[in-house]
Parts: sequence; C-alpha cells; structure tokens
Amino acid sequence: MTDTTIDHLIQLLAKLPGLGPRSARRAVLHLLRRREALMGPLAEAMAETAATIRTCSVCGNLDTADPCPICRDPRRDPTLLCVVEDVADLWALERTGSFKGRYHVLGGTLSALDGVRPEDLSIGSLIARATATDASSDTTDARVVEVILALNATVEGQTTAHYITDRLEGAGVRISRLAHGVPIGGELDYLDEGTLTAALKARREF
Amino acid sequence: MTDTTIDHLIQLLAKLPGLGPRSARRAVLHLLRRREALMGPLAEAMAETAATIRTCSVCGNLDTADPCPICRDPRRDPTLLCVVEDVADLWALERTGSFKGRYHVLGGTLSALDGVRPEDLSIGSLIARATATDASSDTTDARVVEVILALNATVEGQTTAHYITDRLEGAGVRISRLAHGVPIGGELDYLDEGTLTAALKARREF
Repeated sequence: MTDTTIDHLIQLLAKLPGLGPRSARRAVLHLLRRREALMGPLAEAMAETAATIRTCSVCGNLDTADPCPICRDPRRDPTLLCVVEDVADLWALERTGSFKGRYHVLGGTLSALDGVRPEDLSIGSLIARATATDASSDTTDARVVEVILALNATVEGQTTAHYITDRLEGAGVRISRLAHGVPIGGELDYLDEGTLTAALKARREF
Repeated sequence: MTDTTIDHLIQLLAKLPGLGPRSARRAVLHLLRRREALMGPLAEAMAETAATIRTCSVCGNLDTADPCPICRDPRRDPTLLCVVEDVADLWALERTGSFKGRYHVLGGTLSALDGVRPEDLSIGSLIARATATDASSDTTDARVVEVILALNATVEGQTTAHYITDRLEGAGVRISRLAHGVPIGGELDYLDEGTLTAALKARREF
C-alpha cells in the first residue's frame, strides 16, 4: 500500500538502465528524505533538459544549441571528422580533451541481427559531410581531409567501419581508426589474446 | 564539453544511491533518447511527488495524505503497533500483506558511533502512542496492546530494541520482536551460525 504518486515515480525510475524495482525504491526513498535539497532541483533539471536539449542537425550531438558548440567553434579543425556510434562516445572523447576536430554521431551500428540498415543510421549525412566541397553544407566549411572511425571494437562496430570505408572509396579522404593495444595501466595477464596480438603487431620503437 | 544543462542533471542524478557519475551519465543519455516518452513524465512525477508527499504526523510514513491511509484505515487494528526503523521497512512489511495493525517509523536506529541519540529518533512519540489511554492522541483510538519491534537484526537495531523495551517497562504493553530463523527457500549450508543457532533454539513441533 505504497502511495500511488510514489509508486508511479518508482515505476518510471525503474526504467533507467542500471536501476531495477528495488534500487528505484531505494532511490525514491532517498529523494523523499531530501525533497527540497535534491528532489525538487532534480525534477527541475530534468524538465529543463527535456525541454531545451535538441539533437545537433550537423553532427548529431545533444545540446541546448543547434548547431552545437563543437560544430560552431571556429577553433576546432573542420578538416578532421571523428565518427562515433553514440553521443556517449563523443562525450568520452571530449573528456580526454585531446581531440580538436569535429564529430559525426552515427546513432548506432549496422546489425543484420537487429535489422539496423545503413539508412537507419546517419551514414548518408556523413558521406555528404566528408565529400562536400568547400562552399557547401557545414557551418564552418573547409573540405574534410581525414575521417577517424572511432567505433567500438565489436563485430558491429567493425562491420560499420568497413561499410563506411567502402562508401568513401575514391572520395579522396584519408580514413583512419583508433589504435588497438594495451590499455594504460592494463596488466598483460588480464588481457585477451586479440588485444595482445594487436599490441604486438603494432609495436613501436622504444 | 558536455552541455552544462546536461552536466547539471548528471551531477544531481549521481547523488542517488547506487548511481555513480558513470551510471548517471548512462541514465541521462537513456533519458535524452526518450525525452517525451520518459524524461518529461519522470520530471513531472518527481515534481509532483516533491510537492505533495508529506510525512505522516502520526506514524512517520510518507504519503500525500496526513494522517496517512494506514493510520486512517478503520479496518486496521489500532491495538497492534509495529515499530520500524525506516519507511522502506514499512513498505517491505506492507508488500507482504500480512500485517493488519498500525506502524511507527523511528527514522533510524540509536548509534553511539554516528552520534544518534534517542531524541534524534521519534522514540518519544512512540512511547506516547504506546502508553496513551483510550481517549487521547491517535486518530482512531484504542489502547495499544502489543508493540512489535520489527527492527533490523543488526547491533544498532538490537540496541534500539533494548532501549525501547526499557522505556516501555511497566507500561503494561506486550513487546514482541520478529522471529529469527531460516529464510524461506534458504539453504542451511549458506546460513551463518547465528541464524542457525536461533532457528534451532526456536524450533517448532512438525
């Protein structure tokens, strides 16, 4: 006989990844104890985000502005285009602070199993951006010189990478992918054979 | 360079139990993809809950109504008072559907380590409810006959139980506690010695 208002909130929260009915209940209880300090502000932040965030029409990033600040930033190299599956991957790369080009979010990977076809992803707009000549499309224009395929090292990610490479053949654009190897801080003993083989093959002079 | 609106939401969500910065980011991304189907309704449910839920002035339950439906329900036995640490425990007992008395939420347990003293919990109001004579205090009145201490089987829970028992001595109220024993579906092999000893001592005729 939990209150229906509370029950409704628990059910909605339980739909978040990583939260089940039990942890949603705990979370709601935590919120109920901090109604003014946390629950109110969280409700507000969520409503504001839902109302103001949109998908960048150029790269697919999520932001209050469209085009997003990355696409509008004149200091970012428009000749470098980094292709990611998902906004989460874009965020992960941005956290490194080491990439100064632009992005293109595919919105997923090709998957015969899940029935994801090229037209379900933003591959068409990627080809258009990558092959556009100076005067066209992008916010700040300049021909794309290199497309970096920062896709997950999964079967689907690699299938998608191959498909994009095929589509860009003959467009005169350099295509690269992220390096495989031993993660920083990683112990060899715990790494799979594929990673170790790749790290060995791509060894560098010390 | 995540958007600040999104960042703010991630930071607030990360304060929920069971969610860290990483899972909060995943949750927000999930919400951003379902802005209308989930994020909007969730924001609304949260705002409504924050605005309407209050603490029941009789038992300490959380509900839109004060006194809460349990305290107001004339079919629930007012002579049986079940003492719990927390609203979560009240919910857990209600889910069983097997208790038809009233509750009293302490709001925690005594703890010398964390500096929780009797006056920090609603022990005073518990004593008042348990010892009140017919005409007074409670919504639907009738003398409390039995106080069930449904406290956690932890050191703090048991300390609190002993303290309450001392305070109620001589009040002419029966005091009971939950049974210890083998959990339904539990395998003896996996149980600790304390539980097994308790189950053995409290054995019943078959």
